Amino acid sequence: MLTRDPSSTGGVKKGPFLAPDVAVVGAGPIGLAIAWRCAARGLRVVVHDPDPGSGASHVAAGMLAPVAEAYFGEQELTRLLTESAARWPAFAEELAEASGADLGYRTEGTLLVGLTADDLAEARRLWAYQQGLGLPVTPSRPSELRDREPALAPRVRGGAVAATDHQVDPRRLVPALRAAATAAGVTLLPTLVERLSDVDAGVTVVAAGCGAAALTGMPVRPVKGQVLRLRAPGAGAPCFRHVIRGYADGEHVYLVPRDSGEVVVGATVEERTDPTVTAGAVLRLLRAAVDLVPELAEYDLVETLAGMRPGTPDNAPILGPLPGRADVLAATGHHRHGIVLTPLTADLIADLIVTGTPDPLLAPFAPDRFAAEEDSHGRDR
Amino acid sequence: MLTRDPSSTGGVKKGPFLAPDVAVVGAGPIGLAIAWRCAARGLRVVVHDPDPGSGASHVAAGMLAPVAEAYFGEQELTRLLTESAARWPAFAEELAEASGADLGYRTEGTLLVGLTADDLAEARRLWAYQQGLGLPVTPSRPSELRDREPALAPRVRGGAVAATDHQVDPRRLVPALRAAATAAGVTLLPTLVERLSDVDAGVTVVAAGCGAAALTGMPVRPVKGQVLRLRAPGAGAPCFRHVIRGYADGEHVYLVPRDSGEVVVGATVEERTDPTVTAGAVLRLLRAAVDLVPELAEYDLVETLAGMRPGTPDNAPILGPLPGRADVLAATGHHRHGIVLTPLTADLIADLIVTGTPDPLLAPFAPDRFAAEEDSHGRDR
Repeated sequence: MLTRDPSSTGGVKKGPFLAPDVAVVGAGPIGLAIAWRCAARGLRVVVHDPDPGSGASHVAAGMLAPVAEAYFGEQELTRLLTESAARWPAFAEELAEASGADLGYRTEGTLLVGLTADDLAEARRLWAYQQGLGLPVTPSRPSELRDREPALAPRVRGGAVAATDHQVDPRRLVPALRAAATAAGVTLLPTLVERLSDVDAGVTVVAAGCGAAALTGMPVRPVKGQVLRLRAPGAGAPCFRHVIRGYADGEHVYLVPRDSGEVVVGATVEERTDPTVTAGAVLRLLRAAVDLVPELAEYDLVETLAGMRPGTPDNAPILGPLPGRADVLAATGHHRHGIVLTPLTADLIADLIVTGTPDPLLAPFAPDRFAAEEDSHGRDR
Repeated sequence: MLTRDPSSTGGVKKGPFLAPDVAVVGAGPIGLAIAWRCAARGLRVVVHDPDPGSGASHVAAGMLAPVAEAYFGEQELTRLLTESAARWPAFAEELAEASGADLGYRTEGTLLVGLTADDLAEARRLWAYQQGLGLPVTPSRPSELRDREPALAPRVRGGAVAATDHQVDPRRLVPALRAAATAAGVTLLPTLVERLSDVDAGVTVVAAGCGAAALTGMPVRPVKGQVLRLRAPGAGAPCFRHVIRGYADGEHVYLVPRDSGEVVVGATVEERTDPTVTAGAVLRLLRAAVDLVPELAEYDLVETLAGMRPGTPDNAPILGPLPGRADVLAATGHHRHGIVLTPLTADLIADLIVTGTPDPLLAPFAPDRFAAEEDSHGRDR
């Protein structure tokens, strides 16, 4: 860790140029936000990425949903999501000011709905669990849901409100972070980093999403997600304002409305690595979307896209120094949660670099949790 | 009509250049085939189109289906379709030779299927009508259908075989016709013709699809069709070889396999003129396709597209001289039948230009059938 005065010009020298204090590999939201935060603390920072924002964030819907995404058996992750979501309002305000950009940050909240009685029964089990954790999810009658969103299908049997689950537009977030980071003195280089030994810096942060596996040996695997983008006809706004997440005949779908008229419909979660958009996935997403909000049938289908999330064995991110490598920090494996976890990840990693002391929040997400597992199970693989 | 020796260099002169014998407006399959046939008869031909092959043919599936497309109350059209389809084998052979191109012409035939008992009942009414006209449609048991195409869904209740309904690839047809026409001496010009008075030729043929309405005043209207293109995974051939046309829960769909691995799924028939691909149409087409051939769910969705067919009040084409304008021939309004009607339209229009005498087959399709209707009904509109 860098324990010296961050205003110094120290760092490893190689060749005629002064090495930076911090090199970040990957210019997605995580990497850029870390770089921005480090530069704000006075560190000299370089970010390497041949194609910034081209990874999971380009496909992501941008839901900031620690409540709706609180699943059974993931309490530590839920705590991290909740803490990061709480930082989003100030983060969004600061970033909008630093970048001069509109992030598409919206706070109307989220409706959780079930189409059939079976769907509703499944959803209610999860809501009860979330309420048990003290999370703000409020069951609502169908009439209350339709008062909020008249576009919901009359068939919708019931639902709940997660008022604090917000949204941001990831395709606006990345350019805003680039602008803010650059303004703070960060240097972006279009380098494709293929080996960590090629990087010359005091500390290297690997925020390369799925690419982190090859660079670090960490168990990060691509988890395919397919999403659609619809557009309201006639350049109008969408016919609903909340994020709508629902179960429709057993299919889980979310609908994220944007001011631009766009509606993001997602997303599949598939353990496969081909980059293609498949007929079956589009069919399932469209069927669920139109079942929940029938008016969407009249919307233009403007984009179909597949992307890869960086998944991990326990669905939680990998944050902290690699085992035996205090100068290499992982900030990857954010899976479905990269956007909501951006502010907290950036703050905690920047603090760790400056102070050398990990925040207790990081403890459950340290890279060495997998090293131990490999020691006990993975020797002969 | 041109009754002079077609080898002469006659024609209207305007300006310093010799006017052509024939000017064709529109370089879709119809216009190009007419130009090719006219040039083969010794006429000097110019074709005007700023974007050849960009109209209905770019979207069309290329089914040559006079049997499956024989609908109630359209006997004269059915006769035309049957006659043109009969010319396709020789036309395809001649065109492939003249152009050196592979047209994707395939003769495996067509399976007609019904998913549910209701679908089958509706289909059987039509098959009985088609059999009554003497057309070769042969009812088949589900087991026979699955012997032919094992990829058919087990749910398919029954069907029929239309062995003589073939297919061609319209996106190969247009370049082949361009090559053949050019080799025969036809001149293609990228002119956008906005008024017929701008065209200087002995005879002008309006083969401009939907654009014919503005040029001629004929009642040609755009009929929107949305189609999808899927692709078999792994660069393989599709899992079926016949064209499959079916009813699936009341939805009519066709599936056209290509050697390239492509499957065309179509098509909606919509009385609207917006050029957008809608979520509802894609949903309906995908649902019907996957219901009939479940394996298609694993195919890539590679293209979604909307196009406009040139429709007419009686669904039949408009072929022959405009009322009071013997020097202007319409060859438009082919609606869903432009590809199958290409050989016959080209032969009959070229013959009419050379001989001055319309073939009796043309009589029911003369432009003046709408003039009469407008005289009796349309005066005060």
